[in-house]
Amino acid sequence: MRRVLIAELNSYLGKEVRISGWIHRIRRLSQVTFLILRDRTGMIQVVVDPALIENTQISTESVVDIRGLVKPEPRSMAGYELLTQSIEVLALAEHLPIQINGNELNIPLETVLDHRVLSLRHAKVNPIFKVQAELVHAFQEFLNGEGFVQVFTPKIVLGGTEGGTELFALEYFEEKAYLAQSPQFYKEMLVGAGYERVYEIGPVYRAEKHSTSRHLNEYVSLDLEMGFIQSEHDLMDLETRLLRHMFSRVEERCASELERLGATIPQVKTIPRLPLGEALELLERQYGKIHEEADLDPEGERLLSQYVLENMASEFVFVTDYPWKKRPMYTMPKGPSSTCSFDLLFRGLEITTGGQRIHDQHLLMDNMRKKGLEPGDFAAYVHCFAMGMPPHGGLAIGLERLTTQILGLRNVREASLFPRDRRRLTP
Amino acid sequence: MRRVLIAELNSYLGKEVRISGWIHRIRRLSQVTFLILRDRTGMIQVVVDPALIENTQISTESVVDIRGLVKPEPRSMAGYELLTQSIEVLALAEHLPIQINGNELNIPLETVLDHRVLSLRHAKVNPIFKVQAELVHAFQEFLNGEGFVQVFTPKIVLGGTEGGTELFALEYFEEKAYLAQSPQFYKEMLVGAGYERVYEIGPVYRAEKHSTSRHLNEYVSLDLEMGFIQSEHDLMDLETRLLRHMFSRVEERCASELERLGATIPQVKTIPRLPLGEALELLERQYGKIHEEADLDPEGERLLSQYVLENMASEFVFVTDYPWKKRPMYTMPKGPSSTCSFDLLFRGLEITTGGQRIHDQHLLMDNMRKKGLEPGDFAAYVHCFAMGMPPHGGLAIGLERLTTQILGLRNVREASLFPRDRRRLTP
Repeated sequence: MRRVLIAELNSYLGKEVRISGWIHRIRRLSQVTFLILRDRTGMIQVVVDPALIENTQISTESVVDIRGLVKPEPRSMAGYELLTQSIEVLALAEHLPIQINGNELNIPLETVLDHRVLSLRHAKVNPIFKVQAELVHAFQEFLNGEGFVQVFTPKIVLGGTEGGTELFALEYFEEKAYLAQSPQFYKEMLVGAGYERVYEIGPVYRAEKHSTSRHLNEYVSLDLEMGFIQSEHDLMDLETRLLRHMFSRVEERCASELERLGATIPQVKTIPRLPLGEALELLERQYGKIHEEADLDPEGERLLSQYVLENMASEFVFVTDYPWKKRPMYTMPKGPSSTCSFDLLFRGLEITTGGQRIHDQHLLMDNMRKKGLEPGDFAAYVHCFAMGMPPHGGLAIGLERLTTQILGLRNVREASLFPRDRRRLTP
Repeated sequence: MRRVLIAELNSYLGKEVRISGWIHRIRRLSQVTFLILRDRTGMIQVVVDPALIENTQISTESVVDIRGLVKPEPRSMAGYELLTQSIEVLALAEHLPIQINGNELNIPLETVLDHRVLSLRHAKVNPIFKVQAELVHAFQEFLNGEGFVQVFTPKIVLGGTEGGTELFALEYFEEKAYLAQSPQFYKEMLVGAGYERVYEIGPVYRAEKHSTSRHLNEYVSLDLEMGFIQSEHDLMDLETRLLRHMFSRVEERCASELERLGATIPQVKTIPRLPLGEALELLERQYGKIHEEADLDPEGERLLSQYVLENMASEFVFVTDYPWKKRPMYTMPKGPSSTCSFDLLFRGLEITTGGQRIHDQHLLMDNMRKKGLEPGDFAAYVHCFAMGMPPHGGLAIGLERLTTQILGLRNVREASLFPRDRRRLTP
């Protein structure tokens, strides 16, 4: 007998079916035992004659196979329930360190993560990663439609893209290698290899020692790079349309997940673009917030987002024209001290860094030297710029941060299935 | 003026346009200079009055922006050409270590890889990765339709999935960590976490010291895992339908790439399933090929594929029932010495390993001990099996191998943008 999914049961009223899943809850009365059975598509009330399970050990979260009759029952949530004919235990749950069938999972995040397989079964945890998968799917769908090619580049690399800090070191046979901080060099090289427009979805690594609610040491980066742009504004235009597509797809395809998580999807209209200098002045004028350096700190990001929301009715803001000394050597300069660069803030958090890159080899080598870097240390990269590299630029979106902000989570770890941080290497 | 792609030019006959791309070829006659311009969508002949470029330095593979008139020209390949009004050099190609505008790229593979950005521009190299991207896209499309959720699991892990051999070691702050050989434990855990069906597309790492035309030290694994299966045959059924979908999509969407590469897409009908024991007997009987151990060596894989093609008209064959001692500890045993496992051979090469996994914690721990492993060394994994793990299984397809076999490439490195092997860490 073929397994029927719980969400499909409404087509089987009055019929015999086989369903499978986890026992979400057990309520034993004298004459009858009620189970709530859960599979990946939903939950259903199952009515069991106690005689049927007299000699069967069952427990919450055990995996069972049940055959029975789908019977209308107006008092049940679904409008029908299952009258059990037979029940088989496929895997007995023997030990549950945390309880996951309540409305809220009121336990510390570290405990949630220690018991990830159980906590992911909770009604307010499980949907996070369905929304995340849909964000990725929509990212690909949009870029495929725009002529981008998905690429896969190595994560074991000879050096960093920004001069060697915050890298995880690795023994690669006789050589020393590192885990890639970003696919930056490779995606630029692939634009130059004739693909013009490429994207990559893959892990990136930052050996940052500090531990905050916004950082992971391994995360998923949604990276894109495109050739033949006029300026960094082409990239902001593209990202605006990209986010609009991603959010409308999530709204359309994850309605029940969003409802369970109490999340509202932002409307992406025109996103304001504010040069960093103006943003800093505005923060000082409006909130008395002073930044020592020409950059936004986490409080600055939150205040700026608040200002833009209140005054420009946008949950997003592009902060543009970062100073030369704050951006990596491959960033296209703008005048003597600025760059063709931007960050995107969403609900108070930076979720994207992007910009136009240098495409002229001589300018690139000069810029490296000004930053105290030696072009020879980046030979395979620099070399490509003598072979015809179009004007280009790109951006990267942190997948876990985007998920966190959309769903209103408190910590980016909640948006990573198995986070890696300063102290966590397991599960 | 908006850039027009070369493939779109047929809609602009008699009109002025702007096109951009790389100069594929230059032919200077006394009265006229002909350029072939190449962008990501195709090539076009461009007619330039030599006076127009008298003071402009141009060279093959330089990146240019050209404005001109699209004029019908029956003698040209496209049926039209571009009469140049102005030409601007965006990036001058100064140095070309290899020539990439011939029909064939007749240089050694190591040179191809050393100059990857140039070699990827070649007409018979560039399409490889468009086909690869389409394979990935179709893999996702099919599995999304089957209720699978795409997941992202960490590549920095505490240990190996098969007992610690062939791992790249890593310094993770104060701890020793490794690069994941496969997402095996995580995908199983996510089946148990209630997602039931998950897939992952990501890098995996094998610190294998030998160097063959079939091995990479970092490659992309197309992994899937599903719960509530009856046996490993459910997985072979799924993979058959999956491959059928992937191949028909590639045929549909990559017709010109396949033509350029001279590749034919296999028809996936029913795939024969042959227990390993029978396969070994058959090889001995038919070809006098004797295997010392109960496993297929590369020659055995080729001969078996040849036999199946000639006698069963299939380019694929599932080899099933591998002996217990040849499979990892998580494989579901079948009788005293066999397992619920399979490999898939395609045109003489193994492209998939899969099987049903153990879902009972006690059986899992017993099996580990029989293999000389200590369950305590896999605590986070073993622990999950006490919390209700459904019967499940999965498989993994090596993306580069699949690409290699479809396109008839000679070496799996040709199907990796930036391969990592025993001696190669760059570019």
